[in-house]
Amino acid sequence: MIPRLYVEQPLASGATITADERAHHYLRNVMRRAAGDVLVLFNGRDGEFEAKIAVIDKRKAEIRITRQRRAQDSVPDLVLCFAPLKKDAIDFLVEKGTELGVAAFQPVITRRTATSRLNLDRLRANAIEAAEQTERLSIPDIRAPLNFEALLTGWQPSRQMILCAEAGPALPIADQLTALTRHVSPTNAWAIFCGPEGGFHVSELDRLRNLPFVTPVGLGPRILRADTAALSALAVFQAILGDGKLRPPDPMMPIGTGAEGAE
Amino acid sequence: MIPRLYVEQPLASGATITADERAHHYLRNVMRRAAGDVLVLFNGRDGEFEAKIAVIDKRKAEIRITRQRRAQDSVPDLVLCFAPLKKDAIDFLVEKGTELGVAAFQPVITRRTATSRLNLDRLRANAIEAAEQTERLSIPDIRAPLNFEALLTGWQPSRQMILCAEAGPALPIADQLTALTRHVSPTNAWAIFCGPEGGFHVSELDRLRNLPFVTPVGLGPRILRADTAALSALAVFQAILGDGKLRPPDPMMPIGTGAEGAE
Repeated sequence: MIPRLYVEQPLASGATITADERAHHYLRNVMRRAAGDVLVLFNGRDGEFEAKIAVIDKRKAEIRITRQRRAQDSVPDLVLCFAPLKKDAIDFLVEKGTELGVAAFQPVITRRTATSRLNLDRLRANAIEAAEQTERLSIPDIRAPLNFEALLTGWQPSRQMILCAEAGPALPIADQLTALTRHVSPTNAWAIFCGPEGGFHVSELDRLRNLPFVTPVGLGPRILRADTAALSALAVFQAILGDGKLRPPDPMMPIGTGAEGAE
Repeated sequence: MIPRLYVEQPLASGATITADERAHHYLRNVMRRAAGDVLVLFNGRDGEFEAKIAVIDKRKAEIRITRQRRAQDSVPDLVLCFAPLKKDAIDFLVEKGTELGVAAFQPVITRRTATSRLNLDRLRANAIEAAEQTERLSIPDIRAPLNFEALLTGWQPSRQMILCAEAGPALPIADQLTALTRHVSPTNAWAIFCGPEGGFHVSELDRLRNLPFVTPVGLGPRILRADTAALSALAVFQAILGDGKLRPPDPMMPIGTGAEGAE
């Protein structure tokens, strides 16, 4: 298995970088790599690069970047607004949401939100790991929690909000999102808003439904858990309004073959 | 919280049933319920009933069924064919798949399937718990594993298979499923087939692609983990071809109010 790592440094063919503490630990102690071993790096800005370990010891790892594998891409401008959930459910939501192309995670404290303590560092680490393991080239933002009213006060009206409405009037998600495809443009900004376990308070649903940028959608006849509802809406969003028409890079360039620049 | 339990006995207003071992343990030791407490029962055949504990002690629990809350419904005839995954991923897949309305789970051993031991009893328990907690009225079948070739040999050609094709030619899932809506009838039978971590072998994809009942679909540009791919396909299936146009029962009849039959 070729390690694939997110780093924060600029990446360019021919450059050498010093691994940060996390990358150093992972390469040396987890993957037990040695000088000369190949890896893949990305930083969310410069695309994805093939690299080789130049030096690795107890103190540090130096990595020589050999060549670019993929140019930087981007995910749709989609913010997932969600009420914080229990540890397992929120870890799962961030991991799967990262795979499904969420650009930013926005925790929102609603009336029925049971969990208000959030370990944002842990969520960010989960997002990085999910991106590393699923060939994603960017890391989603993990934002600080906002109260329900603060979220709406600061909302840009040009950002369309798809509201997962488990109660009250809502048209089916496939119909609603298909109708919204008429408004798709390269500058579109989107959000999905899912409530906590137990759902939005009726006053919150009423408030949201009356906002011009909100489209309530129904997710079918079953009562989904909060994390399932969010992922279900995300999957349908990407299929109909997002980048679901694209294919994975195919064939992926094999690693450690061909020209290796200055090597 | 009102306990909601799956039982295997026939259910009818006015009848009294003896709780099975699992229901007895849950009511007495987990939920610490007493005689006179209300609960909800379903069995996957007769709908959902309100009930009251008549007797509960160390030895047994007797439950008197008071009235029907909901008539039996059904989920679309959708089989999820999937390669067994690691424990966490497969538990998660069965839990979320149950919420998303899978009728039957069919494990399939493919060339790259890493895990072949499967605890079907544990998976069935997960499915029951997910159904209990999300208002589902039926329990999905958990089938014994089949080899790839045995699956295809026994396939009913009238069952359309939606193939999650992570490599090679495939049109976007939303387009393909929308095209299939032309063939929707009440007798439709469907399946989704997702490969293992690492994907189908190219020979498996080629074999599947040439079968008349197979529609390969693409799930977008990111490489999804096997469980994420399955859930993503399921969510889009229900939204476009399944029962995603229905709404949850609203308002749910409050429990423990109104006429209570023979009480």
